[in-house]
Amino acid sequence: MVEPANTVGVPMNPTPLLKDELDIVIPTIRNLDFLEMWRPFLQPYHLIIVQDGDPSKTIAVPEGFDYELYNRNDINRILGPKASCISFKDSACRCFGYMVSKKKYIFTIDDDCFVAKDPSGKAVNALEQHIKNLLCPSSPFFFNTLYDPYREGADFVRGYPFSLREGVSTAVSHGLWLNIPDYDAPTQLVKPKERNTRYVDAVLTIPKGTLFPMCGMNLAFDRELIGPAMYFGLMGDGQPIGRYDDMWAGWCVKVICDHLGLGVKTGLPYIYHSKASNPFVNLKKEYKGIFWQEDIIPFFQSAKLSKEAVTVQQCYIELSKMVKEKLSPIDPYFDKLADAMVTWIEAWDELNPATKA
Amino acid sequence: MVEPANTVGVPMNPTPLLKDELDIVIPTIRNLDFLEMWRPFLQPYHLIIVQDGDPSKTIAVPEGFDYELYNRNDINRILGPKASCISFKDSACRCFGYMVSKKKYIFTIDDDCFVAKDPSGKAVNALEQHIKNLLCPSSPFFFNTLYDPYREGADFVRGYPFSLREGVSTAVSHGLWLNIPDYDAPTQLVKPKERNTRYVDAVLTIPKGTLFPMCGMNLAFDRELIGPAMYFGLMGDGQPIGRYDDMWAGWCVKVICDHLGLGVKTGLPYIYHSKASNPFVNLKKEYKGIFWQEDIIPFFQSAKLSKEAVTVQQCYIELSKMVKEKLSPIDPYFDKLADAMVTWIEAWDELNPATKA
Repeated sequence: MVEPANTVGVPMNPTPLLKDELDIVIPTIRNLDFLEMWRPFLQPYHLIIVQDGDPSKTIAVPEGFDYELYNRNDINRILGPKASCISFKDSACRCFGYMVSKKKYIFTIDDDCFVAKDPSGKAVNALEQHIKNLLCPSSPFFFNTLYDPYREGADFVRGYPFSLREGVSTAVSHGLWLNIPDYDAPTQLVKPKERNTRYVDAVLTIPKGTLFPMCGMNLAFDRELIGPAMYFGLMGDGQPIGRYDDMWAGWCVKVICDHLGLGVKTGLPYIYHSKASNPFVNLKKEYKGIFWQEDIIPFFQSAKLSKEAVTVQQCYIELSKMVKEKLSPIDPYFDKLADAMVTWIEAWDELNPATKA
Repeated sequence: MVEPANTVGVPMNPTPLLKDELDIVIPTIRNLDFLEMWRPFLQPYHLIIVQDGDPSKTIAVPEGFDYELYNRNDINRILGPKASCISFKDSACRCFGYMVSKKKYIFTIDDDCFVAKDPSGKAVNALEQHIKNLLCPSSPFFFNTLYDPYREGADFVRGYPFSLREGVSTAVSHGLWLNIPDYDAPTQLVKPKERNTRYVDAVLTIPKGTLFPMCGMNLAFDRELIGPAMYFGLMGDGQPIGRYDDMWAGWCVKVICDHLGLGVKTGLPYIYHSKASNPFVNLKKEYKGIFWQEDIIPFFQSAKLSKEAVTVQQCYIELSKMVKEKLSPIDPYFDKLADAMVTWIEAWDELNPATKA
């Protein structure tokens, strides 16, 4: 049986990487006891906690963690009418944390994710691996059969063009999950007992032109390179769908990374995902998305951004126009979403004026 | 230190999969003692041995193996003038074995490849894993973050479109190597001591539109689906390059698989690669290829086959015309190669008349 690691006695990293350049964003509705287990790895970093749901509730944060916390009242106060682009009663609200951060890197993690063990039984420092992934290049233009060529003990194999070996900057590091896999409601219903026990010791670049299902549970990214595209859409309260927030962000992000020549990596690190969400509740949230994604995927697969779009913001605004034009016929929801995408960028630029230049 | 497995005492598979539908193709210049170690896994199958170099030399095959052997004289006799398309003094000659086989599946392996151990110390039955890979579908249109969704204990993750979950037929299974990695001469020179010790427990589909460096050392494919594209080109004796035979085949195969909607998988199984070839000799063989691949890769990346090309043969002939037109300006070698591609298809169809229909 897979079990989470025990981190009691695991020494804290003496010189945490990028300590002053990275924020950890956690969306939550409950006390953050799960951080106890992460203490050796995450305590040196600053946390941005986005409290979802009832703002009058108090969220307890374990002692010793440095954090700022935003509830719905804070979001409304800071963004004013633009707060409409931030989802409520859905973990999609986490993207508010990306917006208020002033750091170069973001690591976001769900509060039901614990420290995983590698096959040797050692506790996995997920953040350290994400940082490694982000700090070394990606290779999106040609597949390397020995996976990440920049990893110790690996390289580009015979037949890999030398001109492509410098790689490109990595914008996103997508981590995986042991124990409860990130399945949709139908798969959860069909395979209620399936657990992910396979530790695949690999990191790889998702090739240019290929979309992937980006899960927001264990995710890191370079805010300066791709932040404004990390919008988690309109989900939850008052919206017709849920559980597509991270998927939506992933599709937008991948199209924009491909356009701008940035890399997206997936694989290590693993976290231990403890709780399967209720498949019946999930089905209710997902069912429109299950239909819609059949149109959304081809839309993103064929989306072509113009040469004039050279910043993430410009790309994102172009994409919002395409969403309005091509996806609104499916459902009025996409019209609203396209508007929210524009509002998101306006709010982002308001809070991050330097990135406008 | 990584060591090959010890297969003494490993019981033979009582009901070998696809026993009558698969040939094992081995190019060699020496006695096939390496087969001793493979006996538990490979003895039930039929071998096609392609003897390279001096045809008067006798190749010893361990007792108990069922095989047919072709030397250069046999190739010349069987193909007549068309034998010019089969390389001499280069392991590229192995593709003659693909042509004379009458089976649906091919597994090809180099004679310096031994049985690998998985992390638990168990000997890896490479052929069994290749067969698994070939018999289950591929998913080239969208990336699955938990790797092969058809593997036991895995599935498609949330956000994977349901319409794409049936997958497509798998044409190629590309296996990897522990110990000596498949590096080019420059990398061998720079990292003479690097050994691959990382066992990545994954199989994945190489996405549509993405090229990869296909290594011929540990490779299986469906001859009926893709056989005529598995031409290993003109290498070795009298040719200006070597060590690009499998790469050339891989680029052609991938473009044609993408066009025909077929899948290419890479990852498991591992073999244990025992001997690094001489990097100085390799550099001599490779150095033109190292230049040329900078033009060849963009050529294949932009190669578009016509709607009329619906068989592998038709695709391959179209590709040969493009090679003549677009690559001949680089070097007269490509003119010769384009002609040899046509000769190869003619010879294939002569030996495999049924596939003409």
